[in-house]
Amino acid sequence: MHPFDAAIALAARPEGGWLGHTSTAYGNMVGPFGGITAAQALQTVMLDASRQGEPVALTVNFCAPLDAGEFVATARAVRTNRSTQHWIVELQQQGQTCVSATVFTALRRQTWAVDEHPPPPVQPPQAVPPARMPAPVAWIDRYEMRFLEGALGGAADGAERPSSRTRLWVRDAPPRPLDATSLVALADVFYPRIFRRRARMVPAGTVSMTVHLHADAPALAAAGEGWLLAQAQAQGFRSGYFDQSAQLWSESGVLLATSLQTVYYKD
Amino acid sequence: MHPFDAAIALAARPEGGWLGHTSTAYGNMVGPFGGITAAQALQTVMLDASRQGEPVALTVNFCAPLDAGEFVATARAVRTNRSTQHWIVELQQQGQTCVSATVFTALRRQTWAVDEHPPPPVQPPQAVPPARMPAPVAWIDRYEMRFLEGALGGAADGAERPSSRTRLWVRDAPPRPLDATSLVALADVFYPRIFRRRARMVPAGTVSMTVHLHADAPALAAAGEGWLLAQAQAQGFRSGYFDQSAQLWSESGVLLATSLQTVYYKD
Repeated sequence: MHPFDAAIALAARPEGGWLGHTSTAYGNMVGPFGGITAAQALQTVMLDASRQGEPVALTVNFCAPLDAGEFVATARAVRTNRSTQHWIVELQQQGQTCVSATVFTALRRQTWAVDEHPPPPVQPPQAVPPARMPAPVAWIDRYEMRFLEGALGGAADGAERPSSRTRLWVRDAPPRPLDATSLVALADVFYPRIFRRRARMVPAGTVSMTVHLHADAPALAAAGEGWLLAQAQAQGFRSGYFDQSAQLWSESGVLLATSLQTVYYKD
Repeated sequence: MHPFDAAIALAARPEGGWLGHTSTAYGNMVGPFGGITAAQALQTVMLDASRQGEPVALTVNFCAPLDAGEFVATARAVRTNRSTQHWIVELQQQGQTCVSATVFTALRRQTWAVDEHPPPPVQPPQAVPPARMPAPVAWIDRYEMRFLEGALGGAADGAERPSSRTRLWVRDAPPRPLDATSLVALADVFYPRIFRRRARMVPAGTVSMTVHLHADAPALAAAGEGWLLAQAQAQGFRSGYFDQSAQLWSESGVLLATSLQTVYYKD
């Protein structure tokens, strides 16, 4: 079984809801990698027998660190319309909510379509050397990363940079066919933008992450096990919080997801 | 009383929660202007006696149209930490959820700060003529709008445009000192990007709206009754949904809010 599938596995509880567990394979400095937690929250909806349609948008709030071990996940369909559905998800430990999320699913239809934000012109993944990340955390090894711009640790001279932007080629390690859950996890693959902008590490962590999935089922299937081009940049930093705007494209240049995060920082 | 304050007024219910009502002053084609609904959802948290801190981020999901009349609003603090708090909000009519939301509040601290996304160079509001909007909906009259780019109805020749971007100066009409609730409403002031990109109107409506409030209390106070520079653009349109990325700056160029929306369209 792929480590990603093992990490998002949920067991139905007789009394309702699901039992999940944190994944040491996706461990971060404090608690698990946020992307895997977001994927677990989405998986709670994906496994629900009453779900209709594909995920289109979700917001995951990291309310408190998940302790290593089990959690209880519940998904409630707060509104079911003819072709759309709205969900509220909570992950709890010891009866306390650690993660809250809203998920929007819909039966998608073919319509006029266009990607207004094209991928930037970059070198193909084969031409970019693999990253060697300095951070000794497990989840980094769950992804192959090839940085085009803004790798962590590059020129950590303490001089403030004019841009927080990072661009990289990224995919699951080992490769795994893309689906909605892994795409959501990949949307959190960027280290905190404050590290890049200030060229040094400060305490920081994602508080809330919103992902709009442009990828419908055919686009996910077409992306397959290929590389994704991923880009993230902050728009502003103030009073302990910054935002992160991100885009992910398939190797062939199809926009798969866009994201906006709220991230805590201390400085 | 300013029409905005009348619209977001909530009455405490003896049995818990709040009683609100839709506002004809902010009426839209179907149901109310989404921005006023988002402001009502936030106001449910703002009025809660157990709230700590200022709103930093929220996601509002428009699950079903609100019928004209009363609704019941509830806010639940799902997690309260030392300096942060996570909320789940629901607005219901006839016991059915019409709006769900998550709100993140925090005690903000002065930190290193920078606006990475600067305002575009534009003419001052005094140099731009007022908009005359063709849409006969009430909420349009609750705002003064001066379009710099991408006004609705401009050159509706049916020819597809290369960009969905709109830029405008905007403020409450009559002017009202900016606060978190009015800023969230203003973050929804843009008409659907599909109208702009395709140069024609099609059925469309916001499904989910995330706002990151860069504006802390001093920034809101400094913005006062001044104009805001507001900009919105889609990143991609596919299978019935597009996203909308938006930025709002104060008249003096301070980044106040960024946003990502998911919008339904039919075509």
